[in-house]
Amino acid sequence: MTNVSIIGVGKTPVREAWDSSIRHLAWYAIEAALDNASTTDIDAIFVGNMLAGQLSSQDHLGALVADFAGLRGIEAVTVEAADASGGAAMRQGVLAVQSGLVRTALVVGVEKMTDETGSTVVAAMSSALDADYEVIHGLTPAGAAALMMRRYMHEYGVTLADFAGFSVNAHANGSQNPMAMFQNRIKAERFPGAPLVADPVNLFDMAPAGDGSAAVVLTSSERAMDMVPQPVRVAGSALTTDTIGLHDRRNPLWLEGAARSAAQALAMASLTLDDIDLFELHDAYTVLAALSLEACGFAEPGRGWQLAQDGSIGREGRIPISTFGGLKARGNPAGATGVYQIVEVAQQLRGEAGNCQVPNARIGMAQNLGGMGATAVTHILRL
Amino acid sequence: MTNVSIIGVGKTPVREAWDSSIRHLAWYAIEAALDNASTTDIDAIFVGNMLAGQLSSQDHLGALVADFAGLRGIEAVTVEAADASGGAAMRQGVLAVQSGLVRTALVVGVEKMTDETGSTVVAAMSSALDADYEVIHGLTPAGAAALMMRRYMHEYGVTLADFAGFSVNAHANGSQNPMAMFQNRIKAERFPGAPLVADPVNLFDMAPAGDGSAAVVLTSSERAMDMVPQPVRVAGSALTTDTIGLHDRRNPLWLEGAARSAAQALAMASLTLDDIDLFELHDAYTVLAALSLEACGFAEPGRGWQLAQDGSIGREGRIPISTFGGLKARGNPAGATGVYQIVEVAQQLRGEAGNCQVPNARIGMAQNLGGMGATAVTHILRL
Repeated sequence: MTNVSIIGVGKTPVREAWDSSIRHLAWYAIEAALDNASTTDIDAIFVGNMLAGQLSSQDHLGALVADFAGLRGIEAVTVEAADASGGAAMRQGVLAVQSGLVRTALVVGVEKMTDETGSTVVAAMSSALDADYEVIHGLTPAGAAALMMRRYMHEYGVTLADFAGFSVNAHANGSQNPMAMFQNRIKAERFPGAPLVADPVNLFDMAPAGDGSAAVVLTSSERAMDMVPQPVRVAGSALTTDTIGLHDRRNPLWLEGAARSAAQALAMASLTLDDIDLFELHDAYTVLAALSLEACGFAEPGRGWQLAQDGSIGREGRIPISTFGGLKARGNPAGATGVYQIVEVAQQLRGEAGNCQVPNARIGMAQNLGGMGATAVTHILRL
Repeated sequence: MTNVSIIGVGKTPVREAWDSSIRHLAWYAIEAALDNASTTDIDAIFVGNMLAGQLSSQDHLGALVADFAGLRGIEAVTVEAADASGGAAMRQGVLAVQSGLVRTALVVGVEKMTDETGSTVVAAMSSALDADYEVIHGLTPAGAAALMMRRYMHEYGVTLADFAGFSVNAHANGSQNPMAMFQNRIKAERFPGAPLVADPVNLFDMAPAGDGSAAVVLTSSERAMDMVPQPVRVAGSALTTDTIGLHDRRNPLWLEGAARSAAQALAMASLTLDDIDLFELHDAYTVLAALSLEACGFAEPGRGWQLAQDGSIGREGRIPISTFGGLKARGNPAGATGVYQIVEVAQQLRGEAGNCQVPNARIGMAQNLGGMGATAVTHILRL
């Protein structure tokens, strides 16, 4: 258990935000989080972002965001770990507050992806992979996911249709979230026939790029109790890595980093999986959702997809996932996604999830992956 | 005073490293630092880097570097604050060890800039500035420095030649550093006539882009004492920001962020400027060297240039700067520079600076700037 608690959360809808610059996006979430925490007394900002340099010709988001948010002069840096940048920024915020050198930290994930053409965005997202050994041969994130999914289908004897439950669940939950990028439901029978992106990964299988920002305010748990009625405790926090290249892994169907980060976070929190009431996982692709469930121990290897078929991942199931739509339906603004997950878990625990509410949610877990699990950040939150 | 000490340092020569990928560069410095610390028991890596996404199509350096360094699986992220990325990574390492959640941290700054054409590198470096309000009008870092230098000359009635002492000193020191990019001395009388880059900034005035990597190993001061004969204590650590845009500053000749970060670091260390035996400052441009000396309090506003004329900044002077050549002669691998500064100060304090040694150096300060001082990171080290 850390000595760190969340005292405020904020987020923007995920959308194609052509009317907002990246500094505006960040500000919208920060404003909401500061308002929610009823404080503007912030000592440091940790910005989770992956692509601003490549897609907006704007590095140095720490100083930029601090100034634009009216917090000119305070400590501020950017943290990057590909699409796990948001989770990594959360981790830095936790370390900072835990150190005692930073009293109150603002963690903001922000990404602006839709101004550029698809090919530019795919090239930028591919910088999450190994440039010298994977991307040089033409691999993209969707291509890497396709390799894993094909292998999964081969190894465990399942079909594309068997993954449908993840997307059906995500869209069902997204349909109840007014901030989700996709608020339409999808039918399981339409899943296997959706347009292919990288065989067997198709449009209904993968999360959409989007623009968005999410923010949380952290302070010590002692201070938190006096500041807000429902502080959310950061019970566990762990960031681990794995090889970037799939070819370097002993078993491409085992997310070793995800397994270790979940185990470390649980150990820190003195909890077991049975204590987890909901799990915001990194469903950028359905195969990643299945593999995350398996790596964390919610399912045996090769059985993760079954949890999506038997109702286990639904809001009333054994382990609800993607409760606000997940990456698949809420949208996946790469470096912001990890902070959306934290915000959503906190909202669930505070009973403020509206139609997305998981009944009696007391303890929640969030896991943000970078690349194909080369970075894995797990946080466990509890009231 | 923090509870954090440096137990190992390493660095590569700064050069045009066309024979090495960015992962190799990082590894060279890491290998040296681990060897120096006599340990491979590392819990977390903080990579300082600005440009890998833009210039090497490679984000996600944390996981990449951890794996390539034989530290597969451990915590690892990238920290970015433009050309202050190295100092910012050092700051995250300090926070992490201070938190108690990370026992031993490796901070590595790495940058690979010279594979690309000059125009590509200038465009990438310009992402340190404000894309929407500065760069869109054609401003570059050299252009911004030129605006500041011209203003300085106008405001304080000094000439271009009055800045020569900074570069003469840097090259004199660089000539004694076998790892410096430029090991030639330059003559003061040749300074004003060097080829112009952005009037009045000329080639002898500005630091060269280069490829390089530097690394330090941090652990708690208690452990450090048992591990190495000469641990170097992190006495003070502060990261602050200022507006990115020069037009937003009340006084473009006052580095407010640099002033506050130096003051905060000194206060944390319970020291005053009189205690500082050497100062590795951010001499990307001579005007930044002058303004840093003024912001920190070593000179009155408008008088910083005089310290370069009267010998104060020499190795035997009152406040030696750029003792291994500084950014100007050692070279400026953007996101790595801040870690080079830390390594160099540590080497001075340990008495391992060779021909660059400052006599009786007991306490040293390093200040890394991002953009034109929009980020300022100050660390104070002592034996």
